[in-house]
Amino acid sequence: MALKDIFKGHEGINKILISNGGENAIDKTFFYLSGVEAGLFEGSSIVATRDSLKMFVFPLEEEIAKQSGHEIVSATSLAQMKDNISRELASEKEVGVNLSSLTVNMFDKIKEENGKLKFRDVSESIQNARMQKSADEISRLKEAANISGEIYESVLNELKEGMKETEVAALLVWKMMSNGASGPAFGSIVGFGENSAIPHYSPGNRKLKKGDFVLTDYGAQYKRYCADTTRTVVFGKATEEQKEIYNTVHEAQSRAMEMIRAGVNGKAVNQKALDIIDATKYKGKMMHGLGHGIGLEVHDHNALSTKDMVLRENMVITDEPGIYIPGFGGVRIEDDVLVKKDGHERITHKPSDFLIEV
Amino acid sequence: MALKDIFKGHEGINKILISNGGENAIDKTFFYLSGVEAGLFEGSSIVATRDSLKMFVFPLEEEIAKQSGHEIVSATSLAQMKDNISRELASEKEVGVNLSSLTVNMFDKIKEENGKLKFRDVSESIQNARMQKSADEISRLKEAANISGEIYESVLNELKEGMKETEVAALLVWKMMSNGASGPAFGSIVGFGENSAIPHYSPGNRKLKKGDFVLTDYGAQYKRYCADTTRTVVFGKATEEQKEIYNTVHEAQSRAMEMIRAGVNGKAVNQKALDIIDATKYKGKMMHGLGHGIGLEVHDHNALSTKDMVLRENMVITDEPGIYIPGFGGVRIEDDVLVKKDGHERITHKPSDFLIEV
Repeated sequence: MALKDIFKGHEGINKILISNGGENAIDKTFFYLSGVEAGLFEGSSIVATRDSLKMFVFPLEEEIAKQSGHEIVSATSLAQMKDNISRELASEKEVGVNLSSLTVNMFDKIKEENGKLKFRDVSESIQNARMQKSADEISRLKEAANISGEIYESVLNELKEGMKETEVAALLVWKMMSNGASGPAFGSIVGFGENSAIPHYSPGNRKLKKGDFVLTDYGAQYKRYCADTTRTVVFGKATEEQKEIYNTVHEAQSRAMEMIRAGVNGKAVNQKALDIIDATKYKGKMMHGLGHGIGLEVHDHNALSTKDMVLRENMVITDEPGIYIPGFGGVRIEDDVLVKKDGHERITHKPSDFLIEV
Repeated sequence: MALKDIFKGHEGINKILISNGGENAIDKTFFYLSGVEAGLFEGSSIVATRDSLKMFVFPLEEEIAKQSGHEIVSATSLAQMKDNISRELASEKEVGVNLSSLTVNMFDKIKEENGKLKFRDVSESIQNARMQKSADEISRLKEAANISGEIYESVLNELKEGMKETEVAALLVWKMMSNGASGPAFGSIVGFGENSAIPHYSPGNRKLKKGDFVLTDYGAQYKRYCADTTRTVVFGKATEEQKEIYNTVHEAQSRAMEMIRAGVNGKAVNQKALDIIDATKYKGKMMHGLGHGIGLEVHDHNALSTKDMVLRENMVITDEPGIYIPGFGGVRIEDDVLVKKDGHERITHKPSDFLIEV
């Protein structure tokens, strides 16, 4: 269970403090541990023991916090918040903190406010726990993937010559939210024609023309969990060149996916996709890693890249090779994949086996 | 100009390093300084001097970075990224960093990778610079506010008995994106009836009934800048109680807004709104601050709260009092306001002077 896992390797510690700053310093571990689905919880904290947790919140989010069933300690001022937390930690000698999330200034303040306490970085055990998803997390991730997949064909049906990239992005988000998403998991990428060659493109006013690649990289957020999926189609009749690029990416994606199972090094999976692409005339045209973990964050953890990472059961990762030809266009195919003991399960379901002509 | 401003008070320093981590540790100062509109730029950095900046990026975002016109240094590996930055800093004795954004673990790594270098926290000068918006930032904030306001009445026109909160949230986002927003600036709050009493509520399956309050707190993101605006209406005929709550909030909002100008302490403005509400039978029913700065972040900086903050020219802040009655409902009215030397300018434009019955 989550609470025990974040203490792994830290037997001498009884409590872990998880603290949120402003909107740019929210520790998603706060939601991992509490399961709370609504609210921002800026400036809120959690103190966790191995079998329970207390939430330290402001009145603004007290109602939402209460619904979680955890013990709530509410403060009406920053000073009171600080006192409540210090009192909770006072009996301890050493307390765990997540130094991969706390900013330097936040941590300095925490140290200052708890003069006698020692702190220990437990970011690695938190990261390790968060990488392997629980049954509840997997069901949220699957629902996010389902929501994203179910609306795709209806968006294709609305493609029209002269349509702007931004209009397609608006449709994707609207349909996901109408289908159960709390919002987009990230800023959707919609690239027509030559713009599909820019991996992290933002949709603009480029108008759809016959023969364009249409690359859509988007995903739903559902109960805070993310989907991240990419499809590329051609608007009109595909050329041989377009088909060749697509088939190469598809081959790289499938062959890499076949390798995914617990115990395999993600680096080898990444290399497989690269090898397939680099054996063609598109050598060097994939300039990003093959995939990343997804969860509470879209880029949740390292997975399929040039860095070592032994895949573990119940990781959920993306498999997303691409070929990008500046000025011409690009293809990326991205699915979300659950790592299993003896294999894997693709949790995104949308047609991708051949280049669709819309 | 921005670059000089972030060095204010740090005459001994020639270079400032701004570093992004993963998606949860992106320093928005990266976009403040570079102006780059697309891309994620995870793991990217900027080294700024008083009159120019270099962007250190990965090939994934090289194309986007190039369009900014700044000097680009691209790296194909983490090791190369580290070397590129270390080389850029090697001539310095002391370098500025933003310790309100760097995580403890990121900063430890930067120190380790640049053994002889001293670092100084310049987060305050960065924060100070970012609080007073440039002409370009103000025009982005105004456009975000316009986009949000323009679509509001068409959403009201679509309200129907039995509609779900999530449907209204989907409509808001779709219409904003169709009207020029790159996306929602934050997860929209849509609360019907009793749910309008929960300030940070997330929309759910509650169905719209005659006589419900309909509270919508939403905003567009435009070229990375945020709008944040709230309106409350009644679906059907308003009761006297609903009107009284509305008029009290409206009075608090207007009287507070009249005070907004450079040189005024935001604490006094906050107190004015509280005094008006606390003089009625709704005493104690506003349990949050009156307003915050907006910019690259929705909650960009402290502004109208119980903390001291002297308002300065070209800050853009929200004015958003509310009254919340658990089980019954709540009203919040929120506008975005540009602080001027001799007064203020409301940049959100939507009807709010009386309680609208839809």
